[in-house]
Formats: sequence, structure tokens, C-alpha cells
Amino acid sequence: MTHFASWERDLLDELQVGRLATIAADGRPHLAPVCYALAGDSIVIPVDEKPKRSLKLERLRNIERHPRVSLLFDRYAGDWTQLAWVRVDGHASVLPRGDERPGALRALRARYEQYAAMRLEERPLIVVTPERARSWRWES
Amino acid sequence: MTHFASWERDLLDELQVGRLATIAADGRPHLAPVCYALAGDSIVIPVDEKPKRSLKLERLRNIERHPRVSLLFDRYAGDWTQLAWVRVDGHASVLPRGDERPGALRALRARYEQYAAMRLEERPLIVVTPERARSWRWES
Repeated sequence: MTHFASWERDLLDELQVGRLATIAADGRPHLAPVCYALAGDSIVIPVDEKPKRSLKLERLRNIERHPRVSLLFDRYAGDWTQLAWVRVDGHASVLPRGDERPGALRALRARYEQYAAMRLEERPLIVVTPERARSWRWES
Repeated sequence: MTHFASWERDLLDELQVGRLATIAADGRPHLAPVCYALAGDSIVIPVDEKPKRSLKLERLRNIERHPRVSLLFDRYAGDWTQLAWVRVDGHASVLPRGDERPGALRALRARYEQYAAMRLEERPLIVVTPERARSWRWES
């Protein structure tokens, strides 16, 4: 497991949204905002019940083809001395059903009240195993 | 120029930070939070004077090698009916000096007061020409 410094972990706890980059079939980078939680040695991302065109999202197809992904967690503020980010490069996999990782679902529900009413158990779950983390803050 | 719907343009105006994805030398996606402005037919991103280890940033090397990039502009809110994002896929180039695009520097300074005191003229400027835009909002 990548070791996060105390301030890095605090930032991941504080933020509510991260950005996931995958590689698309045409070689382009592909971006999506994601809800997430730390669960054991991984970062987990649900495919939740926000309105979507399809459960077979491009990000899932991309991960099957090219499992190396990057996640960015950053804080913006008009006062730039408060700027900070953590970037995690890792290996992603997709579980067909969230109930394979009950601890992950508990961690997600602890962070997002909306997940109490969503059937994450029956939906795909992206699991990212961090391989490398980089970070930056204005005041370091 | 990619045509933005009115709500998409409003979102780009409202937000202060976007996320830029490039492709790294090892084939991974690479992510960075970026300040930006719309300037004519492009989205411009300065290499500003925030503390950095080097002006030769990984994002610049990546663009030279692989100019197809993706930009994500998203709004998160605890009230998920307010969620929205615009993703722009495009072609990026790097100008060695911002003063090649004075209109771009004016647009950046209109959005970020910090740029009044920074010498963007003498610093690299990333110019992204949009080729395709995708967007989503909970309430559409």
C-alpha cells in the first residue's frame, strides 16, 4: 500500500469528489468526476444510481482494456496558499457486484448519505490499488 | 469551434479550476488541476508562478509527445441534483511565451486576480483547441 502522509490522508477525507482518468479505446485520456472512499489498501469508486445512459460506462470498458489509471484529489481556494493536491497512480479492477466488498460499501455510506438508499451491493464497484502517490501544496 | 450550450458555458465561467489529463511517457494517464480561461476558440491554461519544482512540467512534456488531451470541468455539491460536468477533448499545444496570445492573458487576468502580478507574458501557455465536448447534469 502506498503510504499517505497525514495531511494527504486528511485531504482525501475532506474532499467529496475526485477525478478518475483512464485511457480510451482511441488512445485519448478520458476523465470522470467520481465519489470514492478509502477501504483497506484500496480506493473504491461505486457505479451508483446517479442518472446514466447505461451501466456499461466508458470508464469501465477503459479499465478492462487498460487497467492503469490515475486519480486526482485536489482542493481549490481563492486563497491560493490553501491549494493542495494528491495524485494516485494505480491499477484498477471492476467487481461486478459491490457486495463482494462489504467494507468498501460501509466506507462509501459513511461518506455519502445518499448511498444509504442505493443498492450498491448489486452494482459494479471500481477498486483502485495505489502504486504511487504524488502530492503538492503551496505551503509545504 | 465546439459549440457549448448556454448552461455549459455558464458552468465553465462559474468554475475556477479544471482538471487536465494528458498521456505520460509510460502510457499512463496523468492529471493536474489547472486554472483556465476561454479565449476565442480555445481554452488556455497558464504555466503560472505557483511554486513548482521546474518550469519543464510533466504535462508539457506529455503534450509535446501526445497532443490529444482531455479537460474536465465539474461542479460537486452535497445536493446531487446540482451535479454537472462538461468534458472537452481536444488538441493541445504549448506556446513558449504567453505574450503570443495577449487576448488569452487578458481573459486569464479577468478570472484570477492573482495573475495581475504574475509575468504570464514570459511563461509557457497551453492552448487547447476543443474537438469534442460531452456534458451531463442531474437535472437535464
